[in-house]
Amino acid sequence: MTSGMTQAIALAHEAARAGEVPVGAVVTGPDGAILAQAYNHVETWQDPSAHAEMLAMRQAVALRGGQKLGDCTLFVTLEPCPMCAAAITHFRVGRVVFGAYDPKGGGMEHGPRVPYRPETLHKPEVIGGVREQECAALLKDFFTALRHQKNTDKL
Amino acid sequence: MTSGMTQAIALAHEAARAGEVPVGAVVTGPDGAILAQAYNHVETWQDPSAHAEMLAMRQAVALRGGQKLGDCTLFVTLEPCPMCAAAITHFRVGRVVFGAYDPKGGGMEHGPRVPYRPETLHKPEVIGGVREQECAALLKDFFTALRHQKNTDKL
Repeated sequence: MTSGMTQAIALAHEAARAGEVPVGAVVTGPDGAILAQAYNHVETWQDPSAHAEMLAMRQAVALRGGQKLGDCTLFVTLEPCPMCAAAITHFRVGRVVFGAYDPKGGGMEHGPRVPYRPETLHKPEVIGGVREQECAALLKDFFTALRHQKNTDKL
Repeated sequence: MTSGMTQAIALAHEAARAGEVPVGAVVTGPDGAILAQAYNHVETWQDPSAHAEMLAMRQAVALRGGQKLGDCTLFVTLEPCPMCAAAITHFRVGRVVFGAYDPKGGGMEHGPRVPYRPETLHKPEVIGGVREQECAALLKDFFTALRHQKNTDKL
């Protein structure tokens, strides 16, 4: 069985090929089987809220029924932003496993640190830095190529 | 022309009739005309992320094209939660006008106070407490009726 993070990384590569910031997300059920998966669709849909993890969580509850993912794990290649970190608490995700840390835009271990706030009622288990180098390299390569493309366009 | 907040309150009443937590949201354009509007669909769609303001912002960019709402005002009857407060910065909403304050679940003037954080790149203008009593009474009445219903069900 493909692990959640392996599939999330594959989705992030797919995102890059689609011209999206390469972030992939997977929701697995209590048995570890993949329930839902998505990559960023911000550019494709022109929707700033269409982050990979938001789409995967929405898909997971739609498939399972109910509104809660307490017995599920969300795998995502980048530390969720504050919007997604707060959404994770709304969906009551049991465990979040993420790849690269995001000191500027992250909302789990940086910024508002949503899971650790006193007013956050549902606090997921958080495991950060899983296959961190690989997930971070994916993003770095994407932005380097984008900058190169922009510079070439100027010539 | 119906003001943004008047229409947001009308939508919140519609939400209550649909069995949703009564919150309504409206996005107006630079001329003050209503671009998009929505009420909570969390229960109807069984989607914990289907908050009124999230739906209204998504609808507004879909109708206008692009991803930014810098020249727009978001009217919402309740202080946005951290998820929506962070989404507001992703959509780069120019101005947010909200009704009731939400000390427990709010993310603008409470909790993470998203618009005032140093790492928040886009900081909307925020005006809270507009028709506060009316917006708060709507929520209070809804939850009182819900508790009454639950107690009656127990008999």
